[in-house]
Amino acid sequence: MEQNNGTNKVMQAKLLQALTKNENKVFRKAFLDMHFYDQAQFYLSLVPEQRQKLYQILDPHEVGDFFDTIEDDLPEMRELLLEMDTSYAASLLNSMFDDNAADILEHLPKDEVDRYLNLMDKADASQLRKLLHYDTETAGGIMTTDFITLQAELTVGEALTILKHEADEAETIYYVYLVNADQRLVGVITLRDLIVTDDDTKLATIMTAQVITASVHDEQADVAQKIRDYNFIALPVVDDQQRLVGIVTVDDVIEVIDDEAQADYSGLAGVDVEDVSDNPLKAASKRLPWLITLLFLGMSTATLINHYEDLLSEASILAVFISLITGTAGNAGTQSLAVAVRRLAFKGNDKPKLVRLVVSEILTGLVTGLITGLTIMLIVGFWKQNFALGLTIGLAMTAAITVANLAGSLIPMLMDKLGFDPAVASGPFITTLSDLTSVLIYFSIAQVFIHAFM
Amino acid sequence: MEQNNGTNKVMQAKLLQALTKNENKVFRKAFLDMHFYDQAQFYLSLVPEQRQKLYQILDPHEVGDFFDTIEDDLPEMRELLLEMDTSYAASLLNSMFDDNAADILEHLPKDEVDRYLNLMDKADASQLRKLLHYDTETAGGIMTTDFITLQAELTVGEALTILKHEADEAETIYYVYLVNADQRLVGVITLRDLIVTDDDTKLATIMTAQVITASVHDEQADVAQKIRDYNFIALPVVDDQQRLVGIVTVDDVIEVIDDEAQADYSGLAGVDVEDVSDNPLKAASKRLPWLITLLFLGMSTATLINHYEDLLSEASILAVFISLITGTAGNAGTQSLAVAVRRLAFKGNDKPKLVRLVVSEILTGLVTGLITGLTIMLIVGFWKQNFALGLTIGLAMTAAITVANLAGSLIPMLMDKLGFDPAVASGPFITTLSDLTSVLIYFSIAQVFIHAFM
Repeated sequence: MEQNNGTNKVMQAKLLQALTKNENKVFRKAFLDMHFYDQAQFYLSLVPEQRQKLYQILDPHEVGDFFDTIEDDLPEMRELLLEMDTSYAASLLNSMFDDNAADILEHLPKDEVDRYLNLMDKADASQLRKLLHYDTETAGGIMTTDFITLQAELTVGEALTILKHEADEAETIYYVYLVNADQRLVGVITLRDLIVTDDDTKLATIMTAQVITASVHDEQADVAQKIRDYNFIALPVVDDQQRLVGIVTVDDVIEVIDDEAQADYSGLAGVDVEDVSDNPLKAASKRLPWLITLLFLGMSTATLINHYEDLLSEASILAVFISLITGTAGNAGTQSLAVAVRRLAFKGNDKPKLVRLVVSEILTGLVTGLITGLTIMLIVGFWKQNFALGLTIGLAMTAAITVANLAGSLIPMLMDKLGFDPAVASGPFITTLSDLTSVLIYFSIAQVFIHAFM
Repeated sequence: MEQNNGTNKVMQAKLLQALTKNENKVFRKAFLDMHFYDQAQFYLSLVPEQRQKLYQILDPHEVGDFFDTIEDDLPEMRELLLEMDTSYAASLLNSMFDDNAADILEHLPKDEVDRYLNLMDKADASQLRKLLHYDTETAGGIMTTDFITLQAELTVGEALTILKHEADEAETIYYVYLVNADQRLVGVITLRDLIVTDDDTKLATIMTAQVITASVHDEQADVAQKIRDYNFIALPVVDDQQRLVGIVTVDDVIEVIDDEAQADYSGLAGVDVEDVSDNPLKAASKRLPWLITLLFLGMSTATLINHYEDLLSEASILAVFISLITGTAGNAGTQSLAVAVRRLAFKGNDKPKLVRLVVSEILTGLVTGLITGLTIMLIVGFWKQNFALGLTIGLAMTAAITVANLAGSLIPMLMDKLGFDPAVASGPFITTLSDLTSVLIYFSIAQVFIHAFM
């Protein structure tokens, strides 16, 4: 299959050879024949001197075409722009779709942003400045202003003629937005509709007047959900005066869905999994803050156990089951947390009643706790031939699991209520917290039953 | 904004009233004016008697239109089809895009599938039968056969005329695939290209001949990644003879990305978070297998501690730090696991060297372990005024974290090597396993140093 799938090794070697031997025309043709994504992958594999040659062979807008496919948070993006002639970089950014250009500029120091913007076409620079104003994780932050608007009074034939000329400027021509004189959205038509309709039909008669829109302030996750629900290729974004100011396209939505999923995953694990650096020192410095914070929380568990020193020296058998009880309760709490975080992520009508969620988790904890407690009671009873000890461990296990389930659902719920992202309540945090509650429950119960099992 | 965004409450009430009062024409018009997704949401809110009325008002293909937007794994899907006249249900399925119809049929008992297929148009039924043969998580399993092919010898004008007539049958008309007499793919053209090109240009002169494709056997995650990298709206799928057999569209890719993310998240938490049932008994029955399995693994930790009973009764202070060491190592192991699972998910050239990943995680563990160990050494040293004890705890912590990082990266890596999905190595499993290794390390070190700190 490889020969059909983009750049293969042979092709890459041929390109590299042409570049090295200064066969500029050969290079140019072969390079531009590739898909933009493959162009970008080849470009990113070059060393600085080779890239300098490439800048001489290709126009800024040709480089801009494949820059549109590069992730905007690429760490070396700033360096790449700085190694170019400033005006070359500016016109490269100018030729990109403006949502992608804005995403790149967001990661740059302010003075560099201004330097590039000052060298651009005035109108384009002002569009970019506007985009830079929106929060990055809102509809405004991910939308592009490269869309096509028409008047509803036109005919299909007239619309197609205009599209022919404006197609190059737009990120998608598959949706055409109809606006009135105030730039307010009055309808939408797909290119599919235009193709199947006779040329002299008025747009107003075939347009969809009930347009689904997003507000510039909508959260990116909600915008993504809407595009997903309706199977759209793009969604129009309106400002507070209902004027059309941008569109969000499906490729941006894929990034949003992936980003949100990565963030939830990272939250659960207590580590940023998107940081894929190979450098152990760097990786350690990212993970240590969480570990040390949790170490201090863990110290309170140690202090609590220390408080029960007399009990422990009287019945050293109790030490045997500490990690079993804290570990199992932690596992249950992690399950409960994951379910709660995912259910809180459901937006709109499907959002669960919060009290109901917590009650349901407590009941689930009680059922799992009772069964797990019964199991461990029997195991310990037979193992140690001491059913009073078994009962003590079983009771503690049941209570510890129920409390862990409560914590696992209540904490993300409270964070959501307080306006924080529930996904940052991590699994390690819940397990460490549940260590504390589990130990407290365990020793309290053991103190009551000590004369029965000793 | 609500008034602009699909069905609002007023609209829903109006529709329901029209349905109840048998105002069929009013209902029909208002209902069909809505977006398919909103139609589906309204339909799903009805009770059985209301749905029966709806089946009388709407044709099967009108119901099929909004069935295309319903998730195929909706639990009540089978019931919905069974409550319809069998031939109504069959022509509904027949009118759906065949990837969606196949997804629904996959969840039904074999005899019901046959009953529906036998009532369908022969050609469509045979297409569906073919789709049902592919593994659900491959390109073949998610592709649709509703695509448009043309001959490269046609002109743009001729192509547009054909598109006009075939548009209704295709899931997307934004890509047109060019095939030779053997149905082998020779090129692709976007509708955008067709629109901007003069009518008498031959397709062969403007087509992209280097077509990016997927094989029917490719994993769905790889297909999704390709569509994402190239910003495609659809990707052609070819069989082993390079014949075009289907296309995967971007809306399916969004589902794939979301499904894979949910699966990874569920794996990390040791619970299926997609199961959002409110029923605590059901939820408990899904979570218990993991909890009980881990309870038995936890029992080996308890047995190990029991083995060190003499040491514990001699130095009961050791019990104070069990949960601190196991908990902190478990947290580190979870971080390491999450990073390893995500990095293993990178396909293609970006896939990390496995040995390098493990070595890097061990080094990260050593660095985090040393710093965490040093911290706890000082805390315990000052708290208990016993630096020999502090050193014991600190050493144990360092070793336990390093080993937890090793386990967290090695286990998913081994699973990947053995052909299992690394994402099923859950966080709870790693923490429970790391409890065992941590306790072993802790007591071994304590035994060596006991005369120093007692």
